[in-house]
Amino acid sequence: MFVLGIDPGLSRCGYCVLEAVATTQRPRVRALGVLRTPPDALVWDRLAMIQGDIQALMGEFQVGDVALERVVFGANARTASGVIQAAGVIMAEAVRSGAVVAEYGPNQVKEAVTGWGAAPKAQVASMVATLLGLAAVPDPPDAADAAAVALCHLAMTPLRAATTSASGVAR
Amino acid sequence: MFVLGIDPGLSRCGYCVLEAVATTQRPRVRALGVLRTPPDALVWDRLAMIQGDIQALMGEFQVGDVALERVVFGANARTASGVIQAAGVIMAEAVRSGAVVAEYGPNQVKEAVTGWGAAPKAQVASMVATLLGLAAVPDPPDAADAAAVALCHLAMTPLRAATTSASGVAR
Repeated sequence: MFVLGIDPGLSRCGYCVLEAVATTQRPRVRALGVLRTPPDALVWDRLAMIQGDIQALMGEFQVGDVALERVVFGANARTASGVIQAAGVIMAEAVRSGAVVAEYGPNQVKEAVTGWGAAPKAQVASMVATLLGLAAVPDPPDAADAAAVALCHLAMTPLRAATTSASGVAR
Repeated sequence: MFVLGIDPGLSRCGYCVLEAVATTQRPRVRALGVLRTPPDALVWDRLAMIQGDIQALMGEFQVGDVALERVVFGANARTASGVIQAAGVIMAEAVRSGAVVAEYGPNQVKEAVTGWGAAPKAQVASMVATLLGLAAVPDPPDAADAAAVALCHLAMTPLRAATTSASGVAR
């Protein structure tokens, strides 16, 4: 079972592909990084770049589940707009590819990874590294956040993860 | 030259395909209506439906330009989020199809159609009917708004419209 975790963004969009092998084993990191789009490009061109990158990632790993961190409206509506659009594009692309989509709130992600819904970012990143057996904390933070969302999704869907890994079917 | 005007929305998304024949002639209405998605469906499924509908519309009419009305953040952030996501999905799909994308503010659209940036909705709809030679005011209002955006785009790009119609090349 391959899960694509996404920390949505227009300038930097964190992504992490985890392979859930079995409930008793640590998930394997198959891809981890950040999609970037040029800040001086037109918004729609940037959205199309993200769409293409997500399509490529999903095709490469036969991603069955896509988990996104919910975008919370902050002070800057203009920035939020691009992030929300990026999330929308990724969701639609995921459905088109036949994936299951899920969305989790920031506190839900933090709680799933650290046990504390108000955990600071550094603690989340550190726990991500521990849970995934990484030699270092993922950098930039967007990548760590994406990994945290993917881990949250696996924690929320243990039964299905166990079933699909037991039957050996890559969803 | 075919222009697809869009009044973005998740529950109701207005669309209007106009064919610009020549600068001296009234544009022809080739399609006018509203895309609807079921309110009880998951957001990502609704976005994927819109993506599919837009893809179909663009393919049917060889749309060269897609013009959207800019989404303005209102009081209800939750509603705005879905509308912004829908706009993002449509933009990315337009770029993927090789179309030129443009976005216009609500006041810009009103001014282009009625000559007054603060014109009431009914006046915009009435002018749309007049400019397009329609027997009645488009209904629902989302369809009229989409037609207004398409008209605004044609008003903003007269030179290119004239060139493409003169050479007979459908972009």
